[in-house]
Amino acid sequence: MYRTHTCGELRIQNKANKVTLAGWVQRIRELGAMTFIDLRDRYGITQLVVDEKSADDVKKITSELGREFVIRVEGEVKERSSKNTRIDTGDIEIAVENITVLNKSDLPPFTIEDNSDGGDDLRMKYRYLDLRRNPLKQALALRHKMAQEVRKYLDSQNFLEIETPYLIKSTPEGARDFVVPSRVNAGEFYALPQSPQTFKQILMVAGYDRYFQIVRCFRDEDLRADRQPEFTQIDCEMSFVEQKDILSMFEGLARHLFKNVLNVELDNVPQMLYADAMKYYGCDKPDIRFDMKISEITELVKNSGFSVFDNAEYTGAICAKNCGAYTRRQIDELTEWVKRPQIGASGLIYIKLGEDGIKSSIDKFFTTEQLQKIADKTEAQNGDLILILCGKKTKTQSMLGSLRLELGNRLGLRAVNKFAPLWIVDFPLFEWDDETQRFYAMHHPFTSPKPEDVNKFYSNKNEDIGSVNANAYDFVVNGVELGGGSIRIFDRKLQQRMFEILGFTPEAAESQFGFLMNAFKYGAPPHGGIAFGFDRFCAMFGGSDSIRDYIAFPKNNSGRDVMIDSPSPIDNVQLEELSLKVDIKKK
Amino acid sequence: MYRTHTCGELRIQNKANKVTLAGWVQRIRELGAMTFIDLRDRYGITQLVVDEKSADDVKKITSELGREFVIRVEGEVKERSSKNTRIDTGDIEIAVENITVLNKSDLPPFTIEDNSDGGDDLRMKYRYLDLRRNPLKQALALRHKMAQEVRKYLDSQNFLEIETPYLIKSTPEGARDFVVPSRVNAGEFYALPQSPQTFKQILMVAGYDRYFQIVRCFRDEDLRADRQPEFTQIDCEMSFVEQKDILSMFEGLARHLFKNVLNVELDNVPQMLYADAMKYYGCDKPDIRFDMKISEITELVKNSGFSVFDNAEYTGAICAKNCGAYTRRQIDELTEWVKRPQIGASGLIYIKLGEDGIKSSIDKFFTTEQLQKIADKTEAQNGDLILILCGKKTKTQSMLGSLRLELGNRLGLRAVNKFAPLWIVDFPLFEWDDETQRFYAMHHPFTSPKPEDVNKFYSNKNEDIGSVNANAYDFVVNGVELGGGSIRIFDRKLQQRMFEILGFTPEAAESQFGFLMNAFKYGAPPHGGIAFGFDRFCAMFGGSDSIRDYIAFPKNNSGRDVMIDSPSPIDNVQLEELSLKVDIKKK
Repeated sequence: MYRTHTCGELRIQNKANKVTLAGWVQRIRELGAMTFIDLRDRYGITQLVVDEKSADDVKKITSELGREFVIRVEGEVKERSSKNTRIDTGDIEIAVENITVLNKSDLPPFTIEDNSDGGDDLRMKYRYLDLRRNPLKQALALRHKMAQEVRKYLDSQNFLEIETPYLIKSTPEGARDFVVPSRVNAGEFYALPQSPQTFKQILMVAGYDRYFQIVRCFRDEDLRADRQPEFTQIDCEMSFVEQKDILSMFEGLARHLFKNVLNVELDNVPQMLYADAMKYYGCDKPDIRFDMKISEITELVKNSGFSVFDNAEYTGAICAKNCGAYTRRQIDELTEWVKRPQIGASGLIYIKLGEDGIKSSIDKFFTTEQLQKIADKTEAQNGDLILILCGKKTKTQSMLGSLRLELGNRLGLRAVNKFAPLWIVDFPLFEWDDETQRFYAMHHPFTSPKPEDVNKFYSNKNEDIGSVNANAYDFVVNGVELGGGSIRIFDRKLQQRMFEILGFTPEAAESQFGFLMNAFKYGAPPHGGIAFGFDRFCAMFGGSDSIRDYIAFPKNNSGRDVMIDSPSPIDNVQLEELSLKVDIKKK
Repeated sequence: MYRTHTCGELRIQNKANKVTLAGWVQRIRELGAMTFIDLRDRYGITQLVVDEKSADDVKKITSELGREFVIRVEGEVKERSSKNTRIDTGDIEIAVENITVLNKSDLPPFTIEDNSDGGDDLRMKYRYLDLRRNPLKQALALRHKMAQEVRKYLDSQNFLEIETPYLIKSTPEGARDFVVPSRVNAGEFYALPQSPQTFKQILMVAGYDRYFQIVRCFRDEDLRADRQPEFTQIDCEMSFVEQKDILSMFEGLARHLFKNVLNVELDNVPQMLYADAMKYYGCDKPDIRFDMKISEITELVKNSGFSVFDNAEYTGAICAKNCGAYTRRQIDELTEWVKRPQIGASGLIYIKLGEDGIKSSIDKFFTTEQLQKIADKTEAQNGDLILILCGKKTKTQSMLGSLRLELGNRLGLRAVNKFAPLWIVDFPLFEWDDETQRFYAMHHPFTSPKPEDVNKFYSNKNEDIGSVNANAYDFVVNGVELGGGSIRIFDRKLQQRMFEILGFTPEAAESQFGFLMNAFKYGAPPHGGIAFGFDRFCAMFGGSDSIRDYIAFPKNNSGRDVMIDSPSPIDNVQLEELSLKVDIKKK
């Protein structure tokens, strides 16, 4: 060992001990004949002192040190004259008796401080330097802790952690697969899993009863901000369970994590119907840290002579508490906000319940009495502000949902240290896509219809099929979907019907999922499961919106790892061995 | 929940309880009007009874059951009249009051018993049925337990589990990479990691101090029996350590696993020089469950007029205790064994120390006195058998090593429940390859030369370079290498020299490992690590030679997953999106 202690562990009790430390030079301060060095390692920072009484070679080496040099020092623990209460080692310092430079450092391209002066690109390229900063160290330590606690809980519940293969088979349904050419089987390809879905179902057929895995998944999607081509899931599956058993088991997991990682006691986790989430929050992942539900007022405002409302399929309102005194300018600002292309509203209507009575931008068309009815519907009181949007139903609900979140931000109703989890249940089984004129599975093709909807599932009317609900559920915290799952189909006939609805020919279903359909012939048990986005779960616990800081080596928005400069061309010998030719079409 | 209890938990104390169980029909026996069903789940087997008093529909459904049907039963726990002491639930049975078939099963293609009648290929294709058998269930449960205990130990030692990327960069040094074409970056490829080696070193540069990961690794090698294209490693790295610190830390891990998984207390783990392993055991992973060391007798037998010895570079002998009475036939058998192409000896010479004096196949050339000298050298005593091979030194040592293991097998000296771990240390840094006329790294290009050999490392004489020893070590148990690692180079100049010796141009070194060399500019700490083959570690603990049973979904010897039928062709749209063409050359 190059050290007797870490840079985070010495205390006043160690006074007069002879110690050896090793680490990085964080900061050097010279005060007259004295030099103070902050020595840093993963565990903390310890102050070193070199002064006029120090040996000549110690002084000489010290004078040549630079930031991020790796050094080893021997010395005696002394009590500091002026203590630093902000760090755990702040009571002591080391009087250096011996110093060795283990490795020099060039001047880093940005400062290794909590708030670095480096831009995103630079910090990605020098990720090893960025990872030295406290916020990233804390993020990865949090992730480690989360992973251990996930396993502790699931192990205690008799789950087995079972590794499923990464070299599997390409299945075009869903997102795009990354593929891996096989050299031994020329012209053939493996695919990297988008999730271990079929394998965990196979494990249930095999009788493993309770499975989990913290597992990497891969999706070759066009990247958006904060999407990664590889990401990590907590993947789980159980047999002989109904939906309520899964919700209760994984509410238990969430409770365990909140308690053991954040020391937060969760209240009971409420359940909300998907239909209610859309109706009251305009999205399927409502942030219920604050109320401000959407109220439909379509019927209240119809036939008022105000053509905008008269022609709208849907009119909805939200009530911003205590915002009745909003100025013209503040309301204009909100109007501009909803008119941005990301939201796409054509305008915003308001009703203010001020001290001087009810005022609105639609006074011309509505009596005070009518406006009061709207106020009653939205449960607005004196001093509140009502905001109204109208148009196509789903789209307008979604806009109101976005406006609600924006108001939540502006009003400080979305504190990062407050957690409001809930389950969304009873999702539709299918989404209809107008462009391709077909149904897509809202969750995935293995999700079971609700037993009471099985007749509609076998109907040949699109209307019936579209109204089938699924035994599917999402786990949502603070407006972020952290996990989702479903009770699976375990009946071969039902699964065949599902593939049929999704437009698979029997041959395509057989070639892609034949192994699962075959497995269902040999005694498949009822089963269901869930998967949590682990990166996002960690970011949520860390109080961050961005997953990137919670991944040690993330890729940028073009899917590149700029530190190692990958992807990159490979040589022709490799291509030939793989029986491949690169063939770039001009676009 | 479909059940109140599992099939493994009911005991006599549950007598008279009303319970609900769910599981698979393992066996049906009819005895007159009574039907006994063994109901199986992951946790055990419970006996169900249907008799003449049972309701008609229960009798009817029971009469239609088949093997591997999934059923749910309600009934009362009764004490058995004839108890089964071989299973934990053997005191009770369930008098069935209600029975539901949850899913039927076709007749399985092989029996789901501890010893199945299915061949390897069939069992691979129906892996989900094979996985229902006890030996595989136990193997995967053992693997789960191992993984949890590995994490428990390393977490307690302040290691952080950090996930490294799977989509990295192809580096032709070492085994062949699997590559992943990038769609977004046309003509470019990621590679799947052969190990997270460079990333864990980068994490040390980033100051993470102690890292581990149970991680999948990929090698596109021509498969041999019991090699898998994807396999799992326990991957670890530490900073500010010397070799002895690493050995002691991971001896601790081994001790923890043996104790907590197998309840075996390990003695101290001895260390053996690589040179001694080759000299005394003819291989770098000696099985020291038994002694039978190799003795070199080259000088004792030279110039005897026996040309075979006279012309041999090396002659060596092993002594098989108490085998002095081996018959002609037994010795012929051993002779045939060493002459097989896998061993490749041209013959086997013996000396028997029997009751009627010393007898040998070389009596013509050696006096009894000379033979006695050989016996003394090998520490043979009356009743023992000495076996002798000669030829090129390394090859002959290796043959003697193989013969030693074979004798160990025949003499029952290699019990699976006995464990003899050891460290092999001081490996050579390089291997010379005659074919390509260059040095290869024996461990990998990041392994540090021993400090005392650094001068030879900079020499331009191949003889010097070839004699450089490495700070490298292997962890060996019962003749199996379970892990290996090294102290790494952390000096940029030393690393450059390493690449130079391995025949990299500066440009190639820069393009493949530039990020690591750059990282070394900014304060790399001294560091080292180790990686254990997790599949093999599990197989060793399970008492098996084969890793395949310890992997849920292994591939066959052609790298195929025959259950899902992968790899497989992908469609042209996918290929076009990836800017690739399949181009199979006739061979």
